[in-house]
Amino acid sequence: MESGPNLERGQRGPVEHERREQIISAADEHFRRYGYNKTTVADLAKAIGVSSAYVYRFFESKQAIGEAVCAMTLARIDDQLLEIAGRQDSAANRLRSLYHCLAERGIELFFKERKLHDLVVAAVVNLWPPVLQHKAVMLEAARRIVSDGRASGEFERKTPIDEICRAIFETLEPFAHPMLLELKDPPGLEASVVAVSNLVLRSLAP
Amino acid sequence: MESGPNLERGQRGPVEHERREQIISAADEHFRRYGYNKTTVADLAKAIGVSSAYVYRFFESKQAIGEAVCAMTLARIDDQLLEIAGRQDSAANRLRSLYHCLAERGIELFFKERKLHDLVVAAVVNLWPPVLQHKAVMLEAARRIVSDGRASGEFERKTPIDEICRAIFETLEPFAHPMLLELKDPPGLEASVVAVSNLVLRSLAP
Repeated sequence: MESGPNLERGQRGPVEHERREQIISAADEHFRRYGYNKTTVADLAKAIGVSSAYVYRFFESKQAIGEAVCAMTLARIDDQLLEIAGRQDSAANRLRSLYHCLAERGIELFFKERKLHDLVVAAVVNLWPPVLQHKAVMLEAARRIVSDGRASGEFERKTPIDEICRAIFETLEPFAHPMLLELKDPPGLEASVVAVSNLVLRSLAP
Repeated sequence: MESGPNLERGQRGPVEHERREQIISAADEHFRRYGYNKTTVADLAKAIGVSSAYVYRFFESKQAIGEAVCAMTLARIDDQLLEIAGRQDSAANRLRSLYHCLAERGIELFFKERKLHDLVVAAVVNLWPPVLQHKAVMLEAARRIVSDGRASGEFERKTPIDEICRAIFETLEPFAHPMLLELKDPPGLEASVVAVSNLVLRSLAP
């Protein structure tokens, strides 16, 4: 954070950055408490003591604010996925962890934060940019692990890596997609994570 | 069909059966043309020239009619899945066909019949009984194929069959779920069907 409370109005850059963060933070809180659909830009403006017009100087629409909150939330999951992919561990263990991490973070997000549900649904159904970014990170993490496993001789090298990564990405989907996650009971979900990652690892055996 | 146009009012059974079919058929047509959400029980009653109260003698709510239409639609797919599972062909070919069939029928249903979309979404999100039945058939078809492949020596027999079938069911989900299907472009979908079925078949090798 470059800006502080003592900065003057004239210094647009840092103050604007801080305002942006403040709007996102208020939005995150409102979406969690009241839901995305029921929150208006006027509610957010009121919460931070500015006018709606002022908020619109930073975000052109409520959806733009929703996308920013969504990006912040998914970035936390993405950081973990990339951390797992880069770990000093066998490729098999890292791949298992990828499935577990997605399922666990998904459950937290979609079950414990029920009010975020309509934001997540809007994001997924309309393919908001943060969702595409999240999918790209899922694919990247899978590719890094498969690539390492092939290089070390842990995984087979005959099948084209693009085909393997596409398939793994699809098998991650049931644990990443809110509409699929919410239909599963937690013990069933755990059994599915284990069953799918075992199946994928058997297929990767040299 | 037991009933005919000449049956008299007194013969309740067959006439009731025919009325039921007539309501479902009118509902199917209305849902495809106007969508589930925009169709009312009064619209259906008007279409077949009876009162809404008369329709309610057969179905307790619009949702009950929606479930009947959904059951009819999914039963057509289920018949094909079971036909594939029972074919005289290698287990590998049958398993590939299962993925292809689900993806193709799904695309037809969710893309070509856009207006059925809200019915399908309501059914899937609220886990209507026909959806549970459809999932049970997906699992049954997979189990029959895996079981045959294990018996013939085409597939490995070490992994518990329940675990394998659970995993295969999960990998079928991205091709069976309307919200996942509608996010895929057709060439990408075909590549994914091939990649996932290849991955699963590699994992089943003895």
